[in-house]
Amino acid sequence: MTGKNLEPLRWRNGVLEVIDQTLLPAKLAYVRLGDVGQVCAAIKTMKVRGAPLIGVVGAYGLVLSVKKVKTPDLAEAQTQLRKWADILIQTRPTGVNLRWAVERVFNASTEVGDVSSLKEVLLKEADAIFNGELEAARRIGKYGSALLEDGDTVLTHCNAGALATVGYGTSLAVVRAAVEQGKRISVISTETRPLLQGSRLTAFELAHDKIPVKVIVDSAAAQMMARGVVDKILVGADRILRTGHVTNKIGTLPIALSAKFYGVPFYVAAPVSTVDMVTDPSRVVIEERNQREVLYVAGRRVAPRSVEALNPAFDVTPPELVTGIVTDRGMAGPPFVESLRSLSG
Amino acid sequence: MTGKNLEPLRWRNGVLEVIDQTLLPAKLAYVRLGDVGQVCAAIKTMKVRGAPLIGVVGAYGLVLSVKKVKTPDLAEAQTQLRKWADILIQTRPTGVNLRWAVERVFNASTEVGDVSSLKEVLLKEADAIFNGELEAARRIGKYGSALLEDGDTVLTHCNAGALATVGYGTSLAVVRAAVEQGKRISVISTETRPLLQGSRLTAFELAHDKIPVKVIVDSAAAQMMARGVVDKILVGADRILRTGHVTNKIGTLPIALSAKFYGVPFYVAAPVSTVDMVTDPSRVVIEERNQREVLYVAGRRVAPRSVEALNPAFDVTPPELVTGIVTDRGMAGPPFVESLRSLSG
Repeated sequence: MTGKNLEPLRWRNGVLEVIDQTLLPAKLAYVRLGDVGQVCAAIKTMKVRGAPLIGVVGAYGLVLSVKKVKTPDLAEAQTQLRKWADILIQTRPTGVNLRWAVERVFNASTEVGDVSSLKEVLLKEADAIFNGELEAARRIGKYGSALLEDGDTVLTHCNAGALATVGYGTSLAVVRAAVEQGKRISVISTETRPLLQGSRLTAFELAHDKIPVKVIVDSAAAQMMARGVVDKILVGADRILRTGHVTNKIGTLPIALSAKFYGVPFYVAAPVSTVDMVTDPSRVVIEERNQREVLYVAGRRVAPRSVEALNPAFDVTPPELVTGIVTDRGMAGPPFVESLRSLSG
Repeated sequence: MTGKNLEPLRWRNGVLEVIDQTLLPAKLAYVRLGDVGQVCAAIKTMKVRGAPLIGVVGAYGLVLSVKKVKTPDLAEAQTQLRKWADILIQTRPTGVNLRWAVERVFNASTEVGDVSSLKEVLLKEADAIFNGELEAARRIGKYGSALLEDGDTVLTHCNAGALATVGYGTSLAVVRAAVEQGKRISVISTETRPLLQGSRLTAFELAHDKIPVKVIVDSAAAQMMARGVVDKILVGADRILRTGHVTNKIGTLPIALSAKFYGVPFYVAAPVSTVDMVTDPSRVVIEERNQREVLYVAGRRVAPRSVEALNPAFDVTPPELVTGIVTDRGMAGPPFVESLRSLSG
């Protein structure tokens, strides 16, 4: 990546450095994670977020866990790594990339000859995941950009951009690639309550790249479509089931419902590593996050003391509302059971 | 009203006192409005809000404008009142009750014999509007409560409660009346960005009345319906057209779309004074409010400096998404062109 691009994470001298996304847009600063426990905390507190990025961070997290291994016995070492792999996977239970990436690094540990080579082998695997994700983002951009026409206004939700990945993005990769082709694209970004990833991160990285962006409250998306000012919807995904059900940031579902009603194409952009060919739609775990995210705004309590909140972090958009899924291996259209199987094969 | 109920406004010794709703739920305090200019400012800055309440406040605002009249000539006095009536009506252009109430008080001025009796006649008219609204709220509760069953969970948006009216509410009047009948009703309230009327006001007044309430971010309403935990939707309205199109707080439309998709009944509760039998759906003015409401949260800028926002305060829900409208003259069902004409007649 060039110095001009945002680098959400970098590995330097045995330490993982990540942009602390909770400080954006006021401050662009890296936090150093030299320990797997710090990695878990950074994921849980959403210093890093975005399904593809969390996957890569989890991969390097498992590399860091090798430092905790004090035994010369390989089988014992693998048992200890397994424990850390499970802890990492449980930091955010809904996304699929985290499990995929951590398991891939763990599996590499089963191929080493002795404990002393563990760190080198695991790091090589994590680097391969990093490079694969960056390449995947570029390919998503390439395939998806064909969907956008000169002059289009794209509505997006949450942050499926450079900051959600190791760079370039998923749904914003599509926007970036179209802009690089000379198309004039404007973006309407929801703010994305409760954690405001839209106004804080999507608006930040688009302004950084000089792509026009305006922010709306989440619940204004339908009204924008009713006015006819939205040409396409582009969102990311935390988990896509083989049926085409899309688990993504809370608020994706009402946007998809509105898009269906107003005839606006609704596209999902995500690497194939986001596709879960196993889990049944009825078995998806929706992470419930702390009530404080809803009850407090900018550190100030907005609801009365005695009142509680419900805070599901994700919703599930059914396949009949999805126009198409842009992956790093090409487009998937309905019926998704067939197109996703073919792409995942 | 008894001392236990919330009194959003009261007229005392020639001064209008209103609860400053921007301070809730942290502080329950009245602000004194002794001048029509102060009334306009209180409406614009949303110290008072809620279509029915704004109407009554506007009515007393025109009463206060009589103090500005310095001429003994009645025709000249009416010209000056007309100017203030227009200024009051323009403070919030979308709601219909404000215009209705201000015009009703203004019309009373055309029936007086001389300038000296203006204030008394106008005050009598404003008081009549106040009492009429309170009575309307009780009747909305009576008619609407038949829709709710013991054990129901009702999802509501924004604040259509005591604080949106002169007391008791519109959609929350339905909840209150059902609870008074002994039904166990739980409420899920959206927080209602950008001004958080749901978490600040609806949660406050339901907790005040010991009715169970939980808060969600606006975009979680669809997910709650997908889970099957919502039995009915109840919202207020700022303007209902003769066609059944419902203009209400931004975010009502996506809730209605979700309700349609998941088969949840979607009810609107509003006095007949909210019905506009004249305006065409294509001609409804949607108020655009200051971008700062979106770009700043609790006084802190959340979006980057260079980024702008779009901030429509309302959306329009088409009649095919509305199950029924509860008014103070009974229920209106589809086709609304007929049922609303009959109720408004």
